[in-house]
Amino acid sequence: MGCPRVSCCACGALRPASAFSRHQGIPGAPRARPGLDHQACQGYVAVSKTARNLDPLLAPKSFVVVGASAQATRIGGRPLHMAQAFGFQGKVCGVNPKYTEVQGFPCYPDLSAVPFTPDLAIIALGAQDVLETLKQCVAKGIRAAVVFAGGFAETGTDEGCQLQRAIAALCDATGLLLAGPNGIGLVNVANKSYATFMSAMLESPPIPGGVAVVAQSGGACIAVHNSLHARAVGENYILNTGNEICVGFSDYVSYVAADASTKVVAGYIEGLDGSDGFVEQMIALRKRALPTVLYKVGETSAGADAAASHTARMAGSHSVFKTALKQLGVMRADDMEQLAELAYLAQFSRRTAGTRVGILTTSGAFAAILTDKFVAAGLTVPRLSDDLQAAVRPHVPAIATIVNPVDITANVVNSPDGFEDGLRVLLQAEELDTVVFFSTANLIDGLTPQLIRAVGGSGKLLCVLVTGRCKRVADLEAAGIPVFNDTGRGASAIATIAHWNVQKEKWQHWPRPVEQNLVRREAALSLLGKARAGGRRALNEKEGKEVLALYGVPVPKEGTAAHAQEALRLAESFGYPVVLKVLSPDIVHKSEAGGVRLGLNCAAEVAHAHDDILGSVYRHCPEARIEGVLVQQQAAGGVELLVSCAQDPIFGPVLTLAAGGVAAELISDVVQRVLPISVREAGEMLAELKTYPLLAGFRGAPVANFDAVAETLAGISQLGMELRDDISEIEVNPIIVHPGAASGGLVAVDCVVKLR
Amino acid sequence: MGCPRVSCCACGALRPASAFSRHQGIPGAPRARPGLDHQACQGYVAVSKTARNLDPLLAPKSFVVVGASAQATRIGGRPLHMAQAFGFQGKVCGVNPKYTEVQGFPCYPDLSAVPFTPDLAIIALGAQDVLETLKQCVAKGIRAAVVFAGGFAETGTDEGCQLQRAIAALCDATGLLLAGPNGIGLVNVANKSYATFMSAMLESPPIPGGVAVVAQSGGACIAVHNSLHARAVGENYILNTGNEICVGFSDYVSYVAADASTKVVAGYIEGLDGSDGFVEQMIALRKRALPTVLYKVGETSAGADAAASHTARMAGSHSVFKTALKQLGVMRADDMEQLAELAYLAQFSRRTAGTRVGILTTSGAFAAILTDKFVAAGLTVPRLSDDLQAAVRPHVPAIATIVNPVDITANVVNSPDGFEDGLRVLLQAEELDTVVFFSTANLIDGLTPQLIRAVGGSGKLLCVLVTGRCKRVADLEAAGIPVFNDTGRGASAIATIAHWNVQKEKWQHWPRPVEQNLVRREAALSLLGKARAGGRRALNEKEGKEVLALYGVPVPKEGTAAHAQEALRLAESFGYPVVLKVLSPDIVHKSEAGGVRLGLNCAAEVAHAHDDILGSVYRHCPEARIEGVLVQQQAAGGVELLVSCAQDPIFGPVLTLAAGGVAAELISDVVQRVLPISVREAGEMLAELKTYPLLAGFRGAPVANFDAVAETLAGISQLGMELRDDISEIEVNPIIVHPGAASGGLVAVDCVVKLR
Repeated sequence: MGCPRVSCCACGALRPASAFSRHQGIPGAPRARPGLDHQACQGYVAVSKTARNLDPLLAPKSFVVVGASAQATRIGGRPLHMAQAFGFQGKVCGVNPKYTEVQGFPCYPDLSAVPFTPDLAIIALGAQDVLETLKQCVAKGIRAAVVFAGGFAETGTDEGCQLQRAIAALCDATGLLLAGPNGIGLVNVANKSYATFMSAMLESPPIPGGVAVVAQSGGACIAVHNSLHARAVGENYILNTGNEICVGFSDYVSYVAADASTKVVAGYIEGLDGSDGFVEQMIALRKRALPTVLYKVGETSAGADAAASHTARMAGSHSVFKTALKQLGVMRADDMEQLAELAYLAQFSRRTAGTRVGILTTSGAFAAILTDKFVAAGLTVPRLSDDLQAAVRPHVPAIATIVNPVDITANVVNSPDGFEDGLRVLLQAEELDTVVFFSTANLIDGLTPQLIRAVGGSGKLLCVLVTGRCKRVADLEAAGIPVFNDTGRGASAIATIAHWNVQKEKWQHWPRPVEQNLVRREAALSLLGKARAGGRRALNEKEGKEVLALYGVPVPKEGTAAHAQEALRLAESFGYPVVLKVLSPDIVHKSEAGGVRLGLNCAAEVAHAHDDILGSVYRHCPEARIEGVLVQQQAAGGVELLVSCAQDPIFGPVLTLAAGGVAAELISDVVQRVLPISVREAGEMLAELKTYPLLAGFRGAPVANFDAVAETLAGISQLGMELRDDISEIEVNPIIVHPGAASGGLVAVDCVVKLR
Repeated sequence: MGCPRVSCCACGALRPASAFSRHQGIPGAPRARPGLDHQACQGYVAVSKTARNLDPLLAPKSFVVVGASAQATRIGGRPLHMAQAFGFQGKVCGVNPKYTEVQGFPCYPDLSAVPFTPDLAIIALGAQDVLETLKQCVAKGIRAAVVFAGGFAETGTDEGCQLQRAIAALCDATGLLLAGPNGIGLVNVANKSYATFMSAMLESPPIPGGVAVVAQSGGACIAVHNSLHARAVGENYILNTGNEICVGFSDYVSYVAADASTKVVAGYIEGLDGSDGFVEQMIALRKRALPTVLYKVGETSAGADAAASHTARMAGSHSVFKTALKQLGVMRADDMEQLAELAYLAQFSRRTAGTRVGILTTSGAFAAILTDKFVAAGLTVPRLSDDLQAAVRPHVPAIATIVNPVDITANVVNSPDGFEDGLRVLLQAEELDTVVFFSTANLIDGLTPQLIRAVGGSGKLLCVLVTGRCKRVADLEAAGIPVFNDTGRGASAIATIAHWNVQKEKWQHWPRPVEQNLVRREAALSLLGKARAGGRRALNEKEGKEVLALYGVPVPKEGTAAHAQEALRLAESFGYPVVLKVLSPDIVHKSEAGGVRLGLNCAAEVAHAHDDILGSVYRHCPEARIEGVLVQQQAAGGVELLVSCAQDPIFGPVLTLAAGGVAAELISDVVQRVLPISVREAGEMLAELKTYPLLAGFRGAPVANFDAVAETLAGISQLGMELRDDISEIEVNPIIVHPGAASGGLVAVDCVVKLR
């Protein structure tokens, strides 16, 4: 395979893929692969046109089981048993010196004796024999292998890591496609290739369908399959990625997404690193309107630790992951069963973006219950307009409540045609985005023809929630109507898909290419370069604010004084009150070293404070290099915000906006976005703060200049993107917002800029 | 029945039940019934010994269907059909002039013609015929009736309300027991009496068992039954309460709780009023250690509104309901399916109170997933002690992780005996309260004998979570091991029952009898009486604080000045700074009328402020009666708390503690308790505030005097209980807490006390 090249979508330049590293849990073991590094360019990198063809792995026309067993229940016997059981059409054979025939298939003493070149080798041997066997595969011209054995990097032992590195090197050097190791295998339902030892495939054979399962854990893979099967949801792929030393999570997703039979991708994730093209892949799926649902473990730090000890994958920040999935147009599940429910629901293509739900019910209790659930989940159950009520009225029983929820009571049995007409009116109403019908199984059985006819002309999602078992679920589903027996899980799935649909529209153009301002960037880089040249790992406060100012962030008037006289001159030129702070690369906590004086109101105070600071700092840190004293116009009080920008290992620069003040900190009033963001998107961040009302005229207080605040956030976004290769972290703390101020109305008072 | 008497558990006095009112959605229509009013006494009222015997209604030995139908599927036909289908052993007949025989049972033209006196009459007639028929029932000596028809108070019409009142009056006057109206009926599984038209009983016949279902809605009743049935959970009663004009939710609960076959009560609630003995009933169930699970609609105001429009029941405050259930030792479900899961789990009696979970798993993914779920739900997954690890080690595969989660991997198949021994060690460990085993169905099938043997000697709850369908679920359940296929719902149910178990222990003696201090109470009542005599509906600030002070709440030094000179004298005696506030029964918003001056530091300021206040108030409210000017020692700044005590219609006095300050208000940092509470319980409230760290030495700040704050809250609790009949609401806002203050360390600066 040599070294494929990938192209940057921003600059178009082809760069060798080997420039991008990936270690899969082996610290210090980078290796070349056609990974797609979006960190390396200003924009994001498109999926390489030289991406590997995974057909030999995922749609093999023939395979050999090395370590074949005559016992159908053994790991080396299962793939052969399943080839029989599911009727795999291609050539199959085993390798095992003990047999000449195994489970009805020919068996050979070693790979060299196999009289043809299989697409795929399934390696059912212990870890110690894997490398040698893979070399034989390569010699034989076999292009793909599945390795079941554990005992590699996941053990955390030197030996395991070494073995894994050696295998990775072999794959890199030869282009061998390898699934695993430490995986339970790959299933392609249509191809009938079951390169797996999952007994679940025999206990609950996959129903052919459109959900592609990709899971980073064997146990999770089985659980997702079982949940889908219990829900009678059809699958086309069931893939466990294992240790991913060659083919990674996003590679599998890319493959299944390219298959027209895939209607939904359902994934389970334990951890990602930044090099496997996850972001690009998700964007590609969003562009193709292919619904994707992911469940990722690690919502608590205890859970993340347990995940890390399982596969040596780091779970990453769960809050960033949640935020990123919204921006990427991916649904997030909270457990395996919800993953299955969402995959089920996402198969149905009828839906309109929006959060307004119409509830039609034959039960007053469920009118209330579903209203509760949808409203608690952030949807609305809007009162129907008078016109719509008037349009529904003639079709429903006289005792029906038609405000929304529309409670037609069990009397609906007496006028099924009226039901159909009334439902059609709701489905055609522009003021609703989704319609939910709740009833008991026997009523729904009776109304199935009406439901199917009514939904026909509508592009709107109609969901049926039912208590009891309907007899005609398949008919309803065939007509595009999902049916939920678990009303709690159903309501939750409907809410999730409605929000997803809205978010997907909203973020459809994200990330927009970042327009660079080279002059500004050069100016910023020269400041960074100066600090780097001075052996510093961070800018001092004044330099930091100079960088901020380049990106349009309002900063106070300030200057560096070399002596008290200069401090006085600066103070007089700014106007009182002023603040004095020591500038030193060696002092991180200025206040604790006595290096800060606030609220200085006259020349005498400034002079005194200047000398006081130097004296105090000298006492605390006699060795510190002093670059001078910063004289700064003191900002008036206001609403404090904290803004920071840090590098997430998966998603790159992430902006964090937090409300200042102790109470807000205790309740963690924080909003995040993966960069870049526009001014409008920055404004939305602001509005998501729980303490947003403080800026929005709470109790008659003046209103903040939101445009100015949003522009400032967008400026920091721009800064974070342009300087992503040079800055590891920026923290602006606080930005003081002055509601009601005539112009500007905010100022960044202090900041820390750390070099990469 | 006459008028039964009920006894107060605090004072033991028997009081006529007719003193207690109940209106069931008909404003202004109180009626006597053996309700149990806990508002009327200082303590709570015990369940009356003269409680009605509901046997004729819930365990009838014979019944008649009035409006009997020959068609099995009609409302008047179903009860007869089910009597046949389920093999009811008693006498059954119909009343319908059209037939002499109906579905194989004798049929008579009217009730008087029935040749025996049935225990129960099932009235399958329209609303307009119900009253007359009930009168005939009474004449016939029939003691109980079920009324299916709607068209009463739930319609909101005058006619419907009148009809309902008339029926209620008949029941009161005659002692007729009536279920409904507007109900879908009552099922006693063991008695085989199906006084219902629920087709769900035929579609999924109840499995005899220990869960008693009591639901305030027909649709919900069916849904709970269907969810339990889908879970293969057995039931003994399935009861829909309907409009509850005679027999109410708590009466049904009382009846089923008295049946030894009841293992769990599962209830659905739309609304309660304070008169139906709900609190006392729940306490009685807690004392008998009978697990109770309730799902109540109305978590959002939109849901509560929808519920109100359904049955004319007011949902009440959901936050108070949630709090109250904890104190009452009742589990709360979040949807119908969780209600079923919790009822399922609660049937198993093996459990120990505590939140420490040991996770045993064959899947690393589920080690992480379950850790996530339990930790997110507030349980702990503690690291096993070295001793316990050492004790487990010999029994598990060498590659097992045994820190907790204990991941024994699928290799467990090779040493099932080791599995049994290892599991037994975990089940016997004092450092764990619950053990959860996760695996795939095939592994669990293989390990079922080991699971059953291992759990034998332990009192600890062992739950199995499984992906796929186990074959031996019934065996595991018979051995006391619950099995969950839905891992998300399973983890949630386990967390709920663990918390319930802890709360139940904690609140087992609640409510303790309130010790009254008659001298103090008399003093408070005299202040209240004075205000009432003056035609006021609230105390003035000074009187309010005098009442607070009686109950040990620290208040600032203050006094009322009739003129500036007196104000000066008071200020000098307290020491500066002081606050001046106008005292007037006619001015609610003192600040807005210019009636408050803060931070007065000398005599001149006080004199000026005094005249200023009077002038300003005169300009704003020339008609206001002025009682003087309150001179108050000004409290130093500190952490502000708001404490209020109001009457909840169901639960009586409720204490609300909230953090002060705008940010805390925006995020609603609030904790509530139903009164009375002890000093220790008040301390727990404090610790539940999100901003509690502000009092607990956050970032090196001084620590508050928690004992003093808790004693103050307990004092307000005492006040709220002793004066519950006289005060409708107290708001103390703010209480300023001074962390680090030498003694006391808190002061109630302002308060409003509203008379009842």
